[in-house]
Amino acid sequence: MTRAYSADTPMVVLVPDERGLSAVAGETRVRAVVYDPERPQLPDGASEAEVLVAHRLDPAESAPLFAQLPRLRMLQLFSSGVERWTPVVPDGVAVSNADHAHGGAVAEWVVAQLLAHVRDLSGYRIKQQNRQWEAHRTGTLSGSTALVFGAGDIGANIRRRLEPFGCTVTLVGRTARPGVVEFAEGRAALGDRDVVILALPLDDSTMHLVDGAFLGAMKDGAVLINAGRGELVDTEALLGQCGRVTAILDVTDPEPLPTEHPLWSAPGVVLTPHAAGITGDVLDRCWSAAARKIAAYAAASRVAMSE
Amino acid sequence: MTRAYSADTPMVVLVPDERGLSAVAGETRVRAVVYDPERPQLPDGASEAEVLVAHRLDPAESAPLFAQLPRLRMLQLFSSGVERWTPVVPDGVAVSNADHAHGGAVAEWVVAQLLAHVRDLSGYRIKQQNRQWEAHRTGTLSGSTALVFGAGDIGANIRRRLEPFGCTVTLVGRTARPGVVEFAEGRAALGDRDVVILALPLDDSTMHLVDGAFLGAMKDGAVLINAGRGELVDTEALLGQCGRVTAILDVTDPEPLPTEHPLWSAPGVVLTPHAAGITGDVLDRCWSAAARKIAAYAAASRVAMSE
Repeated sequence: MTRAYSADTPMVVLVPDERGLSAVAGETRVRAVVYDPERPQLPDGASEAEVLVAHRLDPAESAPLFAQLPRLRMLQLFSSGVERWTPVVPDGVAVSNADHAHGGAVAEWVVAQLLAHVRDLSGYRIKQQNRQWEAHRTGTLSGSTALVFGAGDIGANIRRRLEPFGCTVTLVGRTARPGVVEFAEGRAALGDRDVVILALPLDDSTMHLVDGAFLGAMKDGAVLINAGRGELVDTEALLGQCGRVTAILDVTDPEPLPTEHPLWSAPGVVLTPHAAGITGDVLDRCWSAAARKIAAYAAASRVAMSE
Repeated sequence: MTRAYSADTPMVVLVPDERGLSAVAGETRVRAVVYDPERPQLPDGASEAEVLVAHRLDPAESAPLFAQLPRLRMLQLFSSGVERWTPVVPDGVAVSNADHAHGGAVAEWVVAQLLAHVRDLSGYRIKQQNRQWEAHRTGTLSGSTALVFGAGDIGANIRRRLEPFGCTVTLVGRTARPGVVEFAEGRAALGDRDVVILALPLDDSTMHLVDGAFLGAMKDGAVLINAGRGELVDTEALLGQCGRVTAILDVTDPEPLPTEHPLWSAPGVVLTPHAAGITGDVLDRCWSAAARKIAAYAAASRVAMSE
């Protein structure tokens, strides 16, 4: 059901707030229309929309909206992961993530947490509270080894920040290529590594990647950091290994983590509430990524039509 | 009072423990003798010593030792700073620091503390304790600016680790050179910078560098990190600015910090007890630096004599 547009027809993009208007204002081929992500009723002119920016929209409540958008071709997200949206978008609608928006901030969170752990900042905080002037030896990243499952934007950003500390970083991806080893090789290296970092998308092939066997292969005192999705880790298996390995988790399964869940206070577990990407500039980064991808889509679709 | 040695005369080096024996064991021109840093009585053969490794030795109690070492030419320290020793060594004795031993570890501490502050890890620790799944926006190093007073080994190590986070780093040294601005320019830039880091030796020219005027020139919410010596900062002036600026201090004046001192609990102050360099590999690093400098001294002095 393709509909032909002339190169002059502006592309209608639904944006969730006024900020979206300015984010795409420079793009002459685009006409932005503000909608309310919390109301299923669309404003006038919205039904022509080809692109929907899904910030603050709930996938579980998106069906009535999609039903009003027969011309929708692209759903633009503010997240890196797409797994909550791919099952609910109508056929023919591409799900576009906020490519390159979060890699730097997530990698910064990974290194911040890892350094705080390795240099025992919490032990020293207690000494300050106790007014105790007494140094103790801590670990260091110098001479350490890290294995990063995920060789995309986040993995590359992690490697670039860790290497200057004298940490040897191996990226693990689906296919071996220069600087990246494949999954089987990554798993085989688990017993040697001080740090294992998850920076993978969630899909059927990565669900519960970190199970009892994976955790059991990690060495005593190793650190597991999950900056991907909660379901990459089998939570029950992790609870069985807490304390032997340290787990620093920005994402959990289930998420949000219920108040009574044992992970909150399990030994050697550090939790943040899916906050690795949430720095002061997060909306700048997301809108910038969204505008870039909308512009690319507009250019490609309008050029195709005008040929 | 130079005494001539033949190239064959081994150089006697006093080391504070058995580990010192193995540290210099590869150096054929050196004969290491173990002494007890806590006893002024020297072992047999020690009075010939040209080099004294001063680890665990107290400068205030070193005079009786020096009196027994007429041939001493070099005092080898395990610290970067030499300011506690230069006033007490006899004339003609060079004070040799543990060059390049601590730059990496101290820079690691600086970045660990800065990231923990910027990403509000302590705020998130409290949320975990309260089992509260709720992200908030934090700062980021991306787009930030840092001024590092001190363009030596520690400063260079800090720059190398901060830049991959998107932080613009300016080193400030005594003389301008590529990549380094001079002090006047550094001071003039204070009002623009998010982070000011001290990685300087202490001497008459740097004592109380950070006074009321310096602190007053820093912008609201800026971070001061002292990884040098406590006396670089006027403690009273700092107490007057705590809260407006954040102070992360590994060194204090006085040091050790007395239990009742107000700095322990001043707002926006993070303290560690001169621990920035104290990682598990600290003795490896110090002995490696000491052995390198002893070997260089032995080579230079024996070559000079054999010419």
